[in-house]
Amino acid sequence: MTAPDPDPPFIRKVPQGDDRERLVCDDCGFVYYQNPKIVVGSVVEHRGRILLCRRAIPPRVGYWTIPAGYLELNEGAEAGARREAWEEATADIAIDQLLAVYTIARISQVQLIYRAGLNAAEVAAGPESQEVALLAWDELPWDELAFPSVHWALKHFDEVRGQTAFAPRVNPAEVLERLTPPGGA
Amino acid sequence: MTAPDPDPPFIRKVPQGDDRERLVCDDCGFVYYQNPKIVVGSVVEHRGRILLCRRAIPPRVGYWTIPAGYLELNEGAEAGARREAWEEATADIAIDQLLAVYTIARISQVQLIYRAGLNAAEVAAGPESQEVALLAWDELPWDELAFPSVHWALKHFDEVRGQTAFAPRVNPAEVLERLTPPGGA
Repeated sequence: MTAPDPDPPFIRKVPQGDDRERLVCDDCGFVYYQNPKIVVGSVVEHRGRILLCRRAIPPRVGYWTIPAGYLELNEGAEAGARREAWEEATADIAIDQLLAVYTIARISQVQLIYRAGLNAAEVAAGPESQEVALLAWDELPWDELAFPSVHWALKHFDEVRGQTAFAPRVNPAEVLERLTPPGGA
Repeated sequence: MTAPDPDPPFIRKVPQGDDRERLVCDDCGFVYYQNPKIVVGSVVEHRGRILLCRRAIPPRVGYWTIPAGYLELNEGAEAGARREAWEEATADIAIDQLLAVYTIARISQVQLIYRAGLNAAEVAAGPESQEVALLAWDELPWDELAFPSVHWALKHFDEVRGQTAFAPRVNPAEVLERLTPPGGA
């Protein structure tokens, strides 16, 4: 399942010299190359508390998430994670290291999730958040998290507590994917 | 500097409800959302030798690279790295762990580079390679590498030899980028 196709005049066909179906404008021949999207985000800890944002925009309005969003053009991955924390929670974060790479092939998404701290203790809801909170570990709303990857990121954050060198975690689907034979995709 | 714009009828404007300029078809109003692209690749070692491919396609024809290329839609990151090794060098690789995340903001590219081994010792040039080779470390063609990130990846591979838990390396630009103040992008 990919994103919905744009309306006509776009049709699906294999452009000359290509080896895959692409979206092509049936009027002018413009090829609409689609690529997986990159999400950048962070698990932010401050004095033992975790920064979460309650979503004010779809999908999953009212559910809790870590600050994260799409990487923009001409933006570095870490800079993007810092921008998202700033936009969603007015949080000035200091990135420590890469916590996880989740790849959600079904929706063509690669998520780069960092472990981070706060440079300043002030946080406040940005326009995309109903509220933001710094929550103790035993206050985390596990049943009201917006997405499975938020759950994974929090669990993985807990797994690597105190570790300064670790391999970034991956999601369960990615682990399974390693078993697929080459050339079989 | 981003990829060149498509030809007219596409123009740059801020679509209703958006906060950035996008490419919009001036005829039908179709919004062409552009996102950073994900490159997946690997430094593949087999019995102390490194797998390199001499490029048969632009850019940098005739120069050496590690197997790498664009992640496709609905493809996991590790699966993509394995596909690229298969396509470029008929190499059946086993991914060990994430070696580096290079983000090259100037060309809106995020590179996920893995450390890998070979499941089978046979390699051969695919259609995008003039030749492929398994080279000893002191045979590596440092002056004929296709891209700076190939150089970084080989150096970083050497840095983490023998380590089983390490934080993925980043490129120098990314390190500098951490110093940019938030909200300043």
